[in-house]
This record gives sequence, C-alpha cells and structure tokens, in this order.
Amino acid sequence: MTAHDTTADEAAVRALFDECRAAVAARDIDRLMRHYTDDLVAFDAIGPLRFVSRPAYDAHWHSCLDMCPGQMIFDMQDLVLSLGGEVGFGHYLVYCGATADDGTAQAGWMRASVGLRKVDGQWRIAHEHFSVPFEPDTCKAQFGLTP
Amino acid sequence: MTAHDTTADEAAVRALFDECRAAVAARDIDRLMRHYTDDLVAFDAIGPLRFVSRPAYDAHWHSCLDMCPGQMIFDMQDLVLSLGGEVGFGHYLVYCGATADDGTAQAGWMRASVGLRKVDGQWRIAHEHFSVPFEPDTCKAQFGLTP
Repeated sequence: MTAHDTTADEAAVRALFDECRAAVAARDIDRLMRHYTDDLVAFDAIGPLRFVSRPAYDAHWHSCLDMCPGQMIFDMQDLVLSLGGEVGFGHYLVYCGATADDGTAQAGWMRASVGLRKVDGQWRIAHEHFSVPFEPDTCKAQFGLTP
Repeated sequence: MTAHDTTADEAAVRALFDECRAAVAARDIDRLMRHYTDDLVAFDAIGPLRFVSRPAYDAHWHSCLDMCPGQMIFDMQDLVLSLGGEVGFGHYLVYCGATADDGTAQAGWMRASVGLRKVDGQWRIAHEHFSVPFEPDTCKAQFGLTP
C-alpha cells in the first residue's frame, strides 16, 4: 500500500469540491478554474465531444452560465472517493440548473466523474465528466431521473 | 512520489482495456465482468441514473447486447491514463454500436471515464462512465459528433 494520510487527503478533496460548488453558486469561473490542472480533459453534458486544456473548458463554463440566468443550482450528493498518494478518482450525483424568474427550479440530476492528481501538494481536477443519460427510443436526455 | 513501476502498470491497464474490447466484440459478458470490482458504481449512456454493484451492471450489459443484434462495434481511441501505485483513472473515446443486417454501421462516438484500483495485484475497474452529450435546444443525444 502507498504510504499517505488517507484521512487528510479525503478531507482536502472534499474541501476542494465544497469550494467548487461555492464558486459555481457565486458564478465565479476564475475561482472555479483554479482547481483544475493545465492539461485538463473534460467531457460535459452538452457538446462538443470533449474539451482539451483548461482555457477551452473555462470558455465553455462561461457559455454555460450565459445559458443559465438566475440563481445557479449545483447540489452534490453521494460523493465517493478513491485516493492514492498522488492520484485518485471520484464520482457523485449533482442536481444542476438554475432558478427561473418565476422562482421555479429548471434543473435535473446529472452524473459526475472526476480524475484527481496532486500537484505541488494540492489536489487538482485533471479530468471531469458530466452527463445525463438518454432514452433509447426517443434519444432524448432523461432529466426526470432521480437518485 | 509513489514507488511503483509506472511502465508495467500502464502496460497492464492497456492490456485490461484490450481484453474488455475483445470481450464486448465476442458478446461475452462473463469475460468482461471479471475486470470490474465487486463494489463497482457505473453510469451508462442510457438510464437509469446509476448502477450500484457488479451484478446490476452485468444485467444492464446483457440488456444492451439484446438491443444491439449483429456484430458489435466498440473501437476505443485516445486512451489517456494517470496511475498511482494502487489507484488510477483514465478516459477515452469509443465508437460504439452494432452493424445492421444490411451491413451499415449503427454507431456513434461516446466518451468514457474509468476509475481504477489494484486488487490483489491486479488492476480492476471500480468506476465507469459512458455518455453522449445532448444538444441544449432539442435535448437530443448528439450522435453525429466526431473527434
């Protein structure tokens, strides 16, 4: 087994995700992007197929916020982590969207996977994958699924 | 840094994925499922939201094969791995579907992420996430995207 402090690593990564959630709620993409590696590869729930590099994903996050006016909703649930000394991964569910002008939530459950690397002693997100499953007969995204 | 043989680990995980691809091509789910951990959590491109445990995912793979008669297509591309001594992650693109009776490919590009753990000296898939992004205006899965 790798010699590392699993408890401290788990606490550090959970704090990282709390900070990401707060950054999204604050619509502060600069604050969010600090937690990704430069060589990030990301797959988002909407196209294109992939984002290679942090600047490409940064621009995509800005366009996503433009699509979601109003109070952001980004509520994580069931975060499970597997961490080694320098590399780890995790997955969670996230209720994601925004509150419309009339106060109703325009949101649905998505799945998220993350690949993590320790860089200069700090855990960073090196890979991220958000998605909504589609329904095979209609090929439509299934926003009505619940955990 | 973790003391481990990165080259040997990378070769072992690439061999694992070659074996998974061969198992899918052979429509042999028992052969495929050997490479997953018992506590696997998986997110597939079609619903439900998640599969918790290997038996649930095993049953899902069987139903997927029933939906795809004909020769399976499961061509991986751009596999990128980050491996520590005992934990790792990876991502790749996969051209996935089946060949119809008239010989035409009914397939599209998907994204895949994996979480890996070494169990009794063997790398196993502990988390897997397949998806197709959806188009925001129509909410339809975007099967026409290419790398």
